[in-house]
Amino acid sequence: MSNTTRRDLLKGGLAVTAGLAAGKSSAGIPDPLITQVQDWATYTGDGVDATPYGMPVEYESDVIRRNVPWLTADSISSINFTPVHALDGTITPQGCAFERHHSGAIDLPKEAYRLMINGLVDTPLVFTYDEIERFPRENHIYFCECAANTGMEWAGAQLNGAQFTHGMIHNMEYTGVPLRMFLNEVGADLSSQNWIYVEGADASSNGRSIPMDKALDDCLVAFKANGEALRKEHGYPVRLIVPGWEGNMWVKWLRRIEVIDMPVESREETSKYTDVLEDGVARKWTWVMDAKSIITSPSPQSPILHGHGPLVISGLAWSGHGKIVRVDISQDGGMNWKIARLGKQQGDSKALTRFYLDIEWNGDQMLLQSRAIDETGYVQPTKEQLRQIRGENSVYHNNCIQTWHISENGSVENVEVS
Amino acid sequence: MSNTTRRDLLKGGLAVTAGLAAGKSSAGIPDPLITQVQDWATYTGDGVDATPYGMPVEYESDVIRRNVPWLTADSISSINFTPVHALDGTITPQGCAFERHHSGAIDLPKEAYRLMINGLVDTPLVFTYDEIERFPRENHIYFCECAANTGMEWAGAQLNGAQFTHGMIHNMEYTGVPLRMFLNEVGADLSSQNWIYVEGADASSNGRSIPMDKALDDCLVAFKANGEALRKEHGYPVRLIVPGWEGNMWVKWLRRIEVIDMPVESREETSKYTDVLEDGVARKWTWVMDAKSIITSPSPQSPILHGHGPLVISGLAWSGHGKIVRVDISQDGGMNWKIARLGKQQGDSKALTRFYLDIEWNGDQMLLQSRAIDETGYVQPTKEQLRQIRGENSVYHNNCIQTWHISENGSVENVEVS
Repeated sequence: MSNTTRRDLLKGGLAVTAGLAAGKSSAGIPDPLITQVQDWATYTGDGVDATPYGMPVEYESDVIRRNVPWLTADSISSINFTPVHALDGTITPQGCAFERHHSGAIDLPKEAYRLMINGLVDTPLVFTYDEIERFPRENHIYFCECAANTGMEWAGAQLNGAQFTHGMIHNMEYTGVPLRMFLNEVGADLSSQNWIYVEGADASSNGRSIPMDKALDDCLVAFKANGEALRKEHGYPVRLIVPGWEGNMWVKWLRRIEVIDMPVESREETSKYTDVLEDGVARKWTWVMDAKSIITSPSPQSPILHGHGPLVISGLAWSGHGKIVRVDISQDGGMNWKIARLGKQQGDSKALTRFYLDIEWNGDQMLLQSRAIDETGYVQPTKEQLRQIRGENSVYHNNCIQTWHISENGSVENVEVS
Repeated sequence: MSNTTRRDLLKGGLAVTAGLAAGKSSAGIPDPLITQVQDWATYTGDGVDATPYGMPVEYESDVIRRNVPWLTADSISSINFTPVHALDGTITPQGCAFERHHSGAIDLPKEAYRLMINGLVDTPLVFTYDEIERFPRENHIYFCECAANTGMEWAGAQLNGAQFTHGMIHNMEYTGVPLRMFLNEVGADLSSQNWIYVEGADASSNGRSIPMDKALDDCLVAFKANGEALRKEHGYPVRLIVPGWEGNMWVKWLRRIEVIDMPVESREETSKYTDVLEDGVARKWTWVMDAKSIITSPSPQSPILHGHGPLVISGLAWSGHGKIVRVDISQDGGMNWKIARLGKQQGDSKALTRFYLDIEWNGDQMLLQSRAIDETGYVQPTKEQLRQIRGENSVYHNNCIQTWHISENGSVENVEVS
């Protein structure tokens, strides 16, 4: 790797820097940043009392969640998007992690928090926040993806930016208590044919039915993300984590869990969060988020600003079915593929994987695509393949291969190839 | 686990909650939070346009970095501490991650950033920020601990809180370029007897000598932490990562790397960051942070506020020599030990490991201690053992076992046992 790289780099953009060592900029102009004492070496900076809670540096103030007003009628039942185009690695800081609300983010103090578990149980119980903190805890890193992520792509290349096409995803380390411990605590009927119905404390309540086997498998009643308390907009003080399954089921401000013998068929699992096919028939119980990937840079909001030569292609891959085992990258719209370099998966199998491809860019146009393959052998489909099976009526579960067109000047556009 | 837990819990604090299901609080008083429609279910909350960059909820506004004014003459050459007592999991959010400056946090835009590599090299080169981003990247989770962390404990139990005794540590996922790639790029003389001298762009420059073998092993030229740009106070736009070694060597605002044939013996590795022994002789080149652990809860700032019954003991362990393989916990000042439950180590071997012990607390006093053991077989020493070898003159590399005294009312104090 480092041999290739070195050759590439000396041949490429970095050759110019040889001049800099002599105090010249790449344009050959004397560079005061090298020839003179740098400004910030002449005075002292901010003291440690300046930032009790640290914020991003002003120069990065454009790396924020953004919403698209025309997508929804009202911002209290809406979405904002993670700036995936500007992030790297795998962890999403809470401050950048997308929000999706059905009736706004509510203000719920720990002292007023209650979790009731009732239904097919020996002893219905209500837990305070302090009581939840007394159960054995676990930590897991999981991705959370909204079922509607990339939904606008069904109808074509409509949103010009990875933040908007793929930004309804985040990946955090959660601290919480396995849901099975609470179900044991109340003496729930744990038979496989049973379900749980989970509700939030917000006005929408956002109720969802979850099969008992999933509830007992890896669901987590979480109160911390990336080490600190959940943010208000992510369900403070307690939310449900449903690893690998659509974000709508990760109920925020978790208020009630009812053990039932059949699903409720609530609004959120009938008129919403079902996938209408070409013939009008709707697929329901489509919970798992299938293998998917996106090239985050270069992308429309992260164009190539440097010259020819070495180019780092960076992206994210994930699967609700388990580990990502391979990611392929095409520079020609899917005709030829190269195997990407996968970063170590930090944390659990249902977490984001970062991938890279280090190439030499000669200024030619590219149709960049990435294709994820998970441990089940499932291969991320093309948009065409997905439409053949699902039509174009759905807004959910679009995990198709995304195409970015790179022009000679390095600008990037969201396009379709057929 | 869940059987034990259930038995413990029903016997313990949660038995009272049976009453709550009938709409009564644990005191038997009707609880409007259960019997009536909850307030926040009657109105809509904040929209997604309210929080472009999310901040902690107001109720958690005490979970912040804090400094101890009397520790240092001036806040620009000082420390603030990570609120480890209030965090869980392993990842440290950047906003909570401790700061240590020698001349304050400087304001250095990417456009003005330069990295010069010179000395025993074929071609001295200066790299701009954009050029650094064109090298192949890696992602790793590593802890960063200041050599002076726990330093006040040499002289006794002086600071009453895990944030102040052990808060000069954080653990983040870094995105960056292996240092060896830059050394290859300039054609450095990579012989084992050589060193590199690294400098920051701040007024202190904080120069340190690093042996070539470490430079080639796992050092990283990093520009992102937990996915987003480094914060100003953590070295924006570029800092050096030296996994497992003392934080002072993780040079922020990295300006220059010189390849040399002997160490510089700079201020920061002679009069500072050396360990003065009882006889006045100083140990130098004590770079690696030895195995260490701390119980973060309960702790002086995180007392036991609930009654008897189930109690979660939570803490952190780490080693600059590699993986943590075991953590023991004592409730009686080191006479008897139980093996703690280790969380999965998220990320690399030189990263924080979270541990737990779930006990039944009957209100007895406790002398709580934790003891880390790493993959080399090294066992974290007692304060007494450490003093016997190192005396009490040093302020650095204190990795002794910490003791918390838990009183019958659940309050916690920093104490010494002998």
